[in-house]
Amino acid sequence: ETDIIWNNTNVRVSLPAVCFVWQIAMIILFGVFIRYDEESDAHWVEFKREHNITSDIENDFYFRYPSFQDVHVMIFVGFGFLMTFLKRYSFGGVGFNFLIAAFGLQWALLMQGWFHSLDPATGKIYIGVESLINADFCCAGSLIAYGALLGKVSPVQLMVVTLFGVTLFAVEEYIILTLLHCRDAGGSMVIHAFGGYYGLAISWVLYRPNLHQSKRLNGSVYHSDVFAMIGTLFLWMFWPSFNSAITDHGDGQHRAAINTYLALASSVLTTVAISSMSQKTGKLDMVHIQNATLAGGVAMGTAAEFMITPYGSLIVGFCTGIISTFGYLYITPFLEKYLKLQDTCGVHNLHALPGMLGGFIGAIVAAAATESVYSAEGLINVFDFEGSFANRGVGTQGGFQAAGTCVAIAFGLVGGAIVGLILRIPIWGDPADDNCYDDEVYWEVRVFREDELTAIFTGLEKHYCRRQSE
Amino acid sequence: ETDIIWNNTNVRVSLPAVCFVWQIAMIILFGVFIRYDEESDAHWVEFKREHNITSDIENDFYFRYPSFQDVHVMIFVGFGFLMTFLKRYSFGGVGFNFLIAAFGLQWALLMQGWFHSLDPATGKIYIGVESLINADFCCAGSLIAYGALLGKVSPVQLMVVTLFGVTLFAVEEYIILTLLHCRDAGGSMVIHAFGGYYGLAISWVLYRPNLHQSKRLNGSVYHSDVFAMIGTLFLWMFWPSFNSAITDHGDGQHRAAINTYLALASSVLTTVAISSMSQKTGKLDMVHIQNATLAGGVAMGTAAEFMITPYGSLIVGFCTGIISTFGYLYITPFLEKYLKLQDTCGVHNLHALPGMLGGFIGAIVAAAATESVYSAEGLINVFDFEGSFANRGVGTQGGFQAAGTCVAIAFGLVGGAIVGLILRIPIWGDPADDNCYDDEVYWEVRVFREDELTAIFTGLEKHYCRRQSE
Amino acid sequence: ETDIIWNNTNVRVSLPAVCFVWQIAMIILFGVFIRYDEESDAHWVEFKREHNITSDIENDFYFRYPSFQDVHVMIFVGFGFLMTFLKRYSFGGVGFNFLIAAFGLQWALLMQGWFHSLDPATGKIYIGVESLINADFCCAGSLIAYGALLGKVSPVQLMVVTLFGVTLFAVEEYIILTLLHCRDAGGSMVIHAFGGYYGLAISWVLYRPNLHQSKRLNGSVYHSDVFAMIGTLFLWMFWPSFNSAITDHGDGQHRAAINTYLALASSVLTTVAISSMSQKTGKLDMVHIQNATLAGGVAMGTAAEFMITPYGSLIVGFCTGIISTFGYLYITPFLEKYLKLQDTCGVHNLHALPGMLGGFIGAIVAAAATESVYSAEGLINVFDFEGSFANRGVGTQGGFQAAGTCVAIAFGLVGGAIVGLILRIPIWGDPADDNCYDDEVYWEVRVFREDELTAIFTGLEKHYCRRQSE
Repeated sequence: ETDIIWNNTNVRVSLPAVCFVWQIAMIILFGVFIRYDEESDAHWVEFKREHNITSDIENDFYFRYPSFQDVHVMIFVGFGFLMTFLKRYSFGGVGFNFLIAAFGLQWALLMQGWFHSLDPATGKIYIGVESLINADFCCAGSLIAYGALLGKVSPVQLMVVTLFGVTLFAVEEYIILTLLHCRDAGGSMVIHAFGGYYGLAISWVLYRPNLHQSKRLNGSVYHSDVFAMIGTLFLWMFWPSFNSAITDHGDGQHRAAINTYLALASSVLTTVAISSMSQKTGKLDMVHIQNATLAGGVAMGTAAEFMITPYGSLIVGFCTGIISTFGYLYITPFLEKYLKLQDTCGVHNLHALPGMLGGFIGAIVAAAATESVYSAEGLINVFDFEGSFANRGVGTQGGFQAAGTCVAIAFGLVGGAIVGLILRIPIWGDPADDNCYDDEVYWEVRVFREDELTAIFTGLEKHYCRRQSE
Repeated sequence: ETDIIWNNTNVRVSLPAVCFVWQIAMIILFGVFIRYDEESDAHWVEFKREHNITSDIENDFYFRYPSFQDVHVMIFVGFGFLMTFLKRYSFGGVGFNFLIAAFGLQWALLMQGWFHSLDPATGKIYIGVESLINADFCCAGSLIAYGALLGKVSPVQLMVVTLFGVTLFAVEEYIILTLLHCRDAGGSMVIHAFGGYYGLAISWVLYRPNLHQSKRLNGSVYHSDVFAMIGTLFLWMFWPSFNSAITDHGDGQHRAAINTYLALASSVLTTVAISSMSQKTGKLDMVHIQNATLAGGVAMGTAAEFMITPYGSLIVGFCTGIISTFGYLYITPFLEKYLKLQDTCGVHNLHALPGMLGGFIGAIVAAAATESVYSAEGLINVFDFEGSFANRGVGTQGGFQAAGTCVAIAFGLVGGAIVGLILRIPIWGDPADDNCYDDEVYWEVRVFREDELTAIFTGLEKHYCRRQSE
Repeated sequence: ETDIIWNNTNVRVSLPAVCFVWQIAMIILFGVFIRYDEESDAHWVEFKREHNITSDIENDFYFRYPSFQDVHVMIFVGFGFLMTFLKRYSFGGVGFNFLIAAFGLQWALLMQGWFHSLDPATGKIYIGVESLINADFCCAGSLIAYGALLGKVSPVQLMVVTLFGVTLFAVEEYIILTLLHCRDAGGSMVIHAFGGYYGLAISWVLYRPNLHQSKRLNGSVYHSDVFAMIGTLFLWMFWPSFNSAITDHGDGQHRAAINTYLALASSVLTTVAISSMSQKTGKLDMVHIQNATLAGGVAMGTAAEFMITPYGSLIVGFCTGIISTFGYLYITPFLEKYLKLQDTCGVHNLHALPGMLGGFIGAIVAAAATESVYSAEGLINVFDFEGSFANRGVGTQGGFQAAGTCVAIAFGLVGGAIVGLILRIPIWGDPADDNCYDDEVYWEVRVFREDELTAIFTGLEKHYCRRQSE
């Protein structure tokens, strides 16, 4: 029947083909373009002498490697385990997250390299630890998009989402950070707003009117919710590292970590409050605790390195925790019902909306910056008012920050719509409406074998007989 | 009936109210008091020049941030997952731990700030990465107390436990570290002895004679024990960071990490030995492995930064592993039977007792310190014999360390008893005796839906019929 | 019957005895031999002055502690959770891993100390953070061996495996690194090839012809596979730290991290490709995803610190991901059928084979090194061409690297065969052929109690009756 033709989930040719072709392309492009930078090259000993660097500890590795590893954990365990909450899609949640991040970071090193660090003299991209952090960040955009699509797409489609997602990311990042000269260290705009709207637009184009046929699997069981808490907590704990990983050495990293730490703490309390208020008996909903508690980190992605003040950070977390939880309660059902938008993980409430808010918060905090608060030199350092931007004022900077947020959203929406159309071509092996959210489609799942079932049943039967005779 | 009136577990008003009121109070108090310190302020560039600091790597962020993140993981994943071991209280274990730590760290920044770093000239508290570590430490006291109460209290009660726990912590810490001038980098006294006895005293006041009515839920299932091992291992692995996080730069952090690493390794072997000896066939008990293996880290909390020697560390771990396992085997049942003390996680054996021992071990090691072992300067650095304490001898120091341990225990017992009485007021929404240890009281728990049960049952039925006809 | 005599799994005497005797031996030997090194001793303040060290940040602690903690997580959570994949051996997987690593690291500090850092003047071994990393590395060899034996041996046997494993490791490491002057920072040779072949040789000697009697338990269930992914991901994420933990300060650590990061990413894609190709409908197999994705990290253990180039790293990951997945598909069944080799976790495919390949890759990359690529000084630094090795050429170095790989394999095979024979003495309490892979043999396992089963059954029965009457 048509159904079977259109929903052939056999990816035995397409998935290996995509993996092989793209990985071989990576090898060739890396061979042509990618080299070690001066801090990771064996010539470092000469470089050090030439630049009067007295100690190896001045190597950027020691400034950023601990933050890099925290970010790395967020990408693979944080995002991965957060998506294990469905009762029968934990393999797909953590496994496909693993696949697309591993591909995405390679493509990101190239794309970001071409835009940001291609040496015109040699035609090479020189990479170091900061490149690795940026590559992980770039993947985050596509992983966020995956959250909206969880359970409804094939791994081949996810590879396509990631290829375009990373490409679009590099372009919007170039426009926002380089051309508009915005600051966005933790990526409220370039990562969360972009990634969130990118995923939502794809999901909107891929709308499935009969998705209710898989309703039985669109929910959690007890232990899948506990697995998801692993993801939540590693994201929550390491978010200060995420927002401070590529900020300025010294006070920049220090302040970004403090601000994010405080905003996240504040989000937890307001999430709990709203979640409890929303139930007749004040019970908490795991979906809220798993997600909305993180909204403060998302919303501090731009402003974390600014002098937003500690209580300012608490206020940001306070508001976004409330907004995000309300999103899960009211906006997601609204979007599904009236906008035909199916958002499995609610990335609208955790990434798109708080990311957009974070962009505007950053704009306001930037516009409000003063020399007395930052010091003259501090102001220049924080906003990088150097070179052709030496004369930009903080008000102008605020305007550009707001514009940057709009650019990120536009890229997400338009890019996502186009990618969604590509994914509607019936060649990608996506699941039918009645077997979404099901690991058995793309994974060998061990089920209880006959003899095990017999053992269980025999046990119950004995018990039954005993009770009957009593 | 009375029962229903007294055990109304509806927290729909009280929990949101407490969260909102306290979070708003935090924002106001942070606005009045909390500012960035000179290393996280944008003026750092000027500060560096004024103080002839040549490199950003001298910022305290780079000395302590990796340790901070390890401590952060211990607080949220370590303590949180350790408390997921109950079969139907995993949400409450990891979720309420999350809530109270997120609140506690904010209140801790204020309380510790007022006592330790309030600048009299400006009336402000200046915070940096070391403040964040101390705030996490301060929460640990209340999280330990939660271990004794797990499954028997409402989230509102836990917020009260944390409010008072953090307050008491800051006071006893001020008395012990500042007035008595004790050293306690990893908090054997101020964190573990205090937190343990605080929780035990509360639990004693809240004694439930009919708790056996919830006996069916007071135990683990297979996978909840595996979840708890996540908590155990992250605590165990990062304990060297816990004990070294706020010790002196250089040899102080280095030595504290080594000593803790060794003590913990030793604890594992003696825990396994005693656990195996306690069963007829030598089987191991997960409760012991999950908890007593950590006793070496607790007991090294004071002495880790001293020159206790590597073999001294092994001896500490050896003895406390044995004592802690014996505690689970004999002391906990004894306390429950004869002292009417219900200690869900056995915090007496993991925190209270090893913490107290750690305090006295610290006293002995301090009293035995000599100039030949420490060097003259080293002795001054390690024990901070400066200012008004310049003439204190090591013997005197040992005496004060012992006195400090007693202060911590006294604060825990008296403070806990008072807080326990407050928690007996019947307004907090705590569970009835027959629905303790049950997530369904405070959480939306997804259970198998009708159609899923039908599917399972139909499968079994078919199987049964087939077997009948064979 | 004989069976009962030969397979008495009561370890109530032997396990505590081994733990106590070995731990007491450790305390005595540490007392005689182990002291703090100058960077962790309280005399550091004097040492700093004497050596004109201007800042505490120059203490090796700050260069290596973050990497140490990542390695520590790999050893305890990485290896431990990777071995929780069996449906009823998760306690044994993570718990025995914990036990033998905690013992092994102590014995490793002594063995490696005697061979590498015994001060002839004082007769003492001086330890610091690098010693802790090396001790963790040394344990890894025995933990790898455990992977081949998982579910088939007693904890007492594992202690024996570790005692000899660590001893053999220290000797082969001394031969390879010191006598042959090989470079092997991430241990392709000394850790993975040795550990893999050591475990395989033991397993070969312990061959159980009737192991099929435990076949029902030799597999995973849904959630045990998710637990194993925790292990996989923490190994995968922190492998860059593993391979860079003890390389040269500065560019050495920086480059090793980059190379490993890239090789691992590449492995993921080829593993997914081959896994999908191997199933009729392109479904992925969790066994492959959990293991073969790590092969790139193993194979980069030697070459990571060399100038292998970023695309070279991708190629290494590409090939080893394929080879390792093929190993799971074809070599493991072949070894079991024709060589009588039962390898529970497939350590042949993840450690032995990629480790051996990594050794030879290292040899080739070393032999191909040139002054133009490394710089003159860089070449000396990377290959440590100093002292009596000042005149060694890169070609010779390559030859020695290859020889080192052979030494590691030989030590694994011969040592493993001997240890296997020791383990065949019928005194160690190993399980019978029909109760392998079963936690109930060595652990108190909580099962559903009578009343719980009744509750479940009553629910089903009601349901059944309702259906009957419809």
